Amino acid sequence: MEIKVMKNILGENDRIAAENRKFFGEKKIFVLNLMGSPGSGKTSLLEKTLEKLSGKIKIAVIEGDLFTAKDAQRIENIGVQVVQINTSGGCHLDAQMVKRAAESLNLDEINLLIVENVGNLVCPAEFDVGENLKAVVLSITEGDDKPLKYPLIFKESAITLLNKIDLIPFTNFNLESAREDLMTLHPNLKIIETSCTKNIGVDEFCAWLLEKVGEVN
Amino acid sequence: MEIKVMKNILGENDRIAAENRKFFGEKKIFVLNLMGSPGSGKTSLLEKTLEKLSGKIKIAVIEGDLFTAKDAQRIENIGVQVVQINTSGGCHLDAQMVKRAAESLNLDEINLLIVENVGNLVCPAEFDVGENLKAVVLSITEGDDKPLKYPLIFKESAITLLNKIDLIPFTNFNLESAREDLMTLHPNLKIIETSCTKNIGVDEFCAWLLEKVGEVN
Repeated sequence: MEIKVMKNILGENDRIAAENRKFFGEKKIFVLNLMGSPGSGKTSLLEKTLEKLSGKIKIAVIEGDLFTAKDAQRIENIGVQVVQINTSGGCHLDAQMVKRAAESLNLDEINLLIVENVGNLVCPAEFDVGENLKAVVLSITEGDDKPLKYPLIFKESAITLLNKIDLIPFTNFNLESAREDLMTLHPNLKIIETSCTKNIGVDEFCAWLLEKVGEVN
Repeated sequence: MEIKVMKNILGENDRIAAENRKFFGEKKIFVLNLMGSPGSGKTSLLEKTLEKLSGKIKIAVIEGDLFTAKDAQRIENIGVQVVQINTSGGCHLDAQMVKRAAESLNLDEINLLIVENVGNLVCPAEFDVGENLKAVVLSITEGDDKPLKYPLIFKESAITLLNKIDLIPFTNFNLESAREDLMTLHPNLKIIETSCTKNIGVDEFCAWLLEKVGEVN
């Protein structure tokens, strides 16, 4: 009984996600679903990326959190159009939430929409919100065992950002072994090492985004 | 419809959790449900704690992960009885999983059972597994905004371990503000600052555990 209802929920989510994808496609907007653990650095990376892409393309952001509008305030502070979704305890964004949030944005002339999901390395990977591609941020401080322990999110994502790479001397993170595990899980995965505080890899991430935006235009 | 079924699932979980609690209570075992984000340092903290408590009390561990037995291997390596639960993608442990895992352990003469939950700051807080108390590990590297963004897990937990405290000089974590937010959410919360690499706070955590074990005997 529970399984049947769960399938219905997912089926309904997929139906709305497909509608979202069609809507964004017609508007020629590339949509990235940005995922990762709490504190992996999603919002900081987003801030740096938005600053660097300013003037090059027009961007809007949907921020997902259980509670608070802290992240949306950070994005708004740098002059980017943003809307906050509060899930009130819910552990992931779903397609319906993104649909409603998108309706509240002015998406005319927007080229790139970044959806920052709830901080969670498990559940967001299971829910299509109508994005073109998924990205996952893994902080060095989380440990090199995470890809094999949380494989779905790395399999589903087109790109993994190995963030806080500047903290590697203070951890026992084995970069070679993490890269090997990631490539085993997902041979075509794009991997970029990033650090917001040391400005590492953010240009490469911006170039990747610009390439993807170019593909939908 | 979906909400009704969700209530049934939680109702069934609560029924089994109550059975677990009765079972552990009769055996005079104190059960701690240890939660936190992926990479917050739950297993490392557990290793240090088990080493320090060795010879003082008898301990068993249940390890929860989506996949792999990496964490259980680490616990077994230090000579503690352990069983691994793999949720195959499930984002939290439930009472039925803990019941089955407990059945596979020899709990005679055990004083303390630590259940290390799936790495996730959201879902585990919603599921009673029959523990006496919940604990949450928050790594300094996750950021000081996490208590207000993920309030339930901090409200549900009797104790918060502010882990990787040695990394504070390399982050912008505001300890005073984090402590203030935690006390606002949960005025009776016990907070301990910990570091496994610098051996900070582990003795205090062990003393707290010994006190709790004493209370059920």
